Amino acid sequence: MPSGPQDRAAAAALDDRSPLRDRRDLFDLPAGVVYLDGNSLGALPRGVADRVARVVTDEWGTGLISSWNDARWVDLALRVGAKIAPLIGARPGDVHVGDSTSVTLFKTLVAAARLRPDRRVIVLEPTTFPTDAYVASGAARMLDLDVRWCDPADPAASLDEDVAVLALTHVDFRSGAMYDLPALTAAAHDVGALAQWDLCHSAGAVPVDLTAADADVAVGCTYKYLNGGPGSPAFSWVHPRHQEAWDQPIPGWFGHAAPFDMEREFQPAPGIVRMASGTPSVLALSVLDAALDVFDGVSADVLRETSLSLTDYFIALVDARLEGRFEVITPRERAVRGSQVSLRHPDAYGIVQALIERGVVGDFRTPDVARFGFAPLYVSHADVYDAVDHLVAVMAGEEYARPAYAVRNPVT
Amino acid sequence: MPSGPQDRAAAAALDDRSPLRDRRDLFDLPAGVVYLDGNSLGALPRGVADRVARVVTDEWGTGLISSWNDARWVDLALRVGAKIAPLIGARPGDVHVGDSTSVTLFKTLVAAARLRPDRRVIVLEPTTFPTDAYVASGAARMLDLDVRWCDPADPAASLDEDVAVLALTHVDFRSGAMYDLPALTAAAHDVGALAQWDLCHSAGAVPVDLTAADADVAVGCTYKYLNGGPGSPAFSWVHPRHQEAWDQPIPGWFGHAAPFDMEREFQPAPGIVRMASGTPSVLALSVLDAALDVFDGVSADVLRETSLSLTDYFIALVDARLEGRFEVITPRERAVRGSQVSLRHPDAYGIVQALIERGVVGDFRTPDVARFGFAPLYVSHADVYDAVDHLVAVMAGEEYARPAYAVRNPVT
Repeated sequence: MPSGPQDRAAAAALDDRSPLRDRRDLFDLPAGVVYLDGNSLGALPRGVADRVARVVTDEWGTGLISSWNDARWVDLALRVGAKIAPLIGARPGDVHVGDSTSVTLFKTLVAAARLRPDRRVIVLEPTTFPTDAYVASGAARMLDLDVRWCDPADPAASLDEDVAVLALTHVDFRSGAMYDLPALTAAAHDVGALAQWDLCHSAGAVPVDLTAADADVAVGCTYKYLNGGPGSPAFSWVHPRHQEAWDQPIPGWFGHAAPFDMEREFQPAPGIVRMASGTPSVLALSVLDAALDVFDGVSADVLRETSLSLTDYFIALVDARLEGRFEVITPRERAVRGSQVSLRHPDAYGIVQALIERGVVGDFRTPDVARFGFAPLYVSHADVYDAVDHLVAVMAGEEYARPAYAVRNPVT
Repeated sequence: MPSGPQDRAAAAALDDRSPLRDRRDLFDLPAGVVYLDGNSLGALPRGVADRVARVVTDEWGTGLISSWNDARWVDLALRVGAKIAPLIGARPGDVHVGDSTSVTLFKTLVAAARLRPDRRVIVLEPTTFPTDAYVASGAARMLDLDVRWCDPADPAASLDEDVAVLALTHVDFRSGAMYDLPALTAAAHDVGALAQWDLCHSAGAVPVDLTAADADVAVGCTYKYLNGGPGSPAFSWVHPRHQEAWDQPIPGWFGHAAPFDMEREFQPAPGIVRMASGTPSVLALSVLDAALDVFDGVSADVLRETSLSLTDYFIALVDARLEGRFEVITPRERAVRGSQVSLRHPDAYGIVQALIERGVVGDFRTPDVARFGFAPLYVSHADVYDAVDHLVAVMAGEEYARPAYAVRNPVT
């Protein structure tokens, strides 16, 4: 092991100085694992197990149907949204949680495009998470709009007065590069278009201020940095100026102004509630509700500074100890970096598998990217040190070349 | 209390002879409660709490991202679908579980209409559950189709060669009346239309054989008679003859033929998997998976016979003990009765509240319906006897007229 500023004691010293050092205790992390995949599936917050047990046994089992009122299931989607709001610069009552990210993207994109009925184009960037592209293409087809693929390096260059919506992912899932959300929102507004932001890889890890940026719509995943558990429901935010005219394509009873009047005509509820369609999963929402408590009292600045400290340190160690072995495709410039670092290598799949074998969990993204996520609430600098230490060993021993890694798993 | 065949001993004797008498032990029912609202929210199966604890603590907490493979989260939606299949006369691989009922209805209705691109009409019945109407209107608007409202007593009269899809609810949520699914499917086919069935109030309580009826599409809720918990995800079934051309409007990565190839172009997965859009709630699916085990080894005939015995008995007791106080709006004819009985009364809201106060849980549906559901796996004839006994007392004491019941709750 190297000595000096990059030895393990230096990492521990960084952790001792971290204002988030005690947050890790709010998570149930398995022993012996360095978990750098919180950008794919967040770790388990300790409060979740008890909450789930209570929801199942007391609220459902004993309270039964009365829990819609007595346990306040009926407005749980909004209450959970209110906990997400401060993490994205939104007012508490403007965030809704309910469907999957894909379904939510479909609903918001259709509704956003309907606010610009005379315009024929949705601008997407071609390296976006694939489901964003599928969903947008599906929405564009139904609305008889065109999808225009922008240059990922310069989305604003694709904007003109034909554009109804600029729909971008804030932090790229593969590279970890982060767009300038306020500047691109302003660029969309300059041509009269709306800006829709996919916050899947940013909410809970990088500062987002939708209100200050004057954005129009945002959607985000809750099972990554928000730790809502596998497949937890997505959130959506619509700027208050658009809510009254907001016209999403799947009107359902939970978005009705008076669901239990059972009227045949749809009357949208006031505000963001109209984003709801069907009955939400109370269990999934309850888990997310409990999970979000780990953010209590954490400021966006501290979250960001910790995240950058972790990714800075990872990049520095890779540079120092694995010089020339990887291409770091994540921006080194702090202002445009999310909370992950991605390394390109032709054997990335085998490298990720060999690391998992050693207890260091990152993930692989086709065709040649090893991804490492740094969830600032529970990843330590010591984790970073250990991860790179194992990576050095994997590369030295060519462990990535094992025959078992020739066939790729469906998921990781 | 009356003596003779309608006394409580007679009810207990009916229960002793029931082939489902031991199934009630598979549920955690609160003491002192007669639960007749399983048509709204099914009771808690005993196996659920342990399963949820395991999913949270072991699969998520310890297994983390590897559980997508190791705990087989990746095909959970299909495995749960395979457990629902025998209850609806489907092949195991043809049922998918994922989104809310409303979202699922939207997706199937659009896809079904796309199979008849030259036709301009969707036929609905005006007393359908409101969300079905909202969703269908939303889908019709996007596809530039017309909604034609049929006569609920004779939907077939509205069929002609302009009709793309006849979309009906099998059992009416308010009255409990059941359509002749095979006959109406045949009527739709006679004009070249597709038949889509909403099985929300039938799956798990009345026999459904989609294959024998040669139906085209079906959607159903899993939190009523299937006991999946509040807001559990809906299922969908598409006849195998339509699956290859099935083109649902929200293509997402979980419905892609190779999700982790991360291709920009959407390639639908073979078969029913293409109904998936985003990442499903693993927690919600796991609960449903555990809950469905209560149906193991129960035949559709036994389920149906028990359900009819319970509703027969309820109607008989209401007739005998409350003659003329209520209009029984549920069909007395067995062939067209679901698994609930609905009573019409101008004070229905107060009556339902007074019964709840006494531990008899049914529900109210606007404007004047008291609804009682008889889930054959856990409702006993003794429950039915006790419920009517309390109803007699509520009516005799005019308990429904309490001032507290003048303001209606948002939900019940």
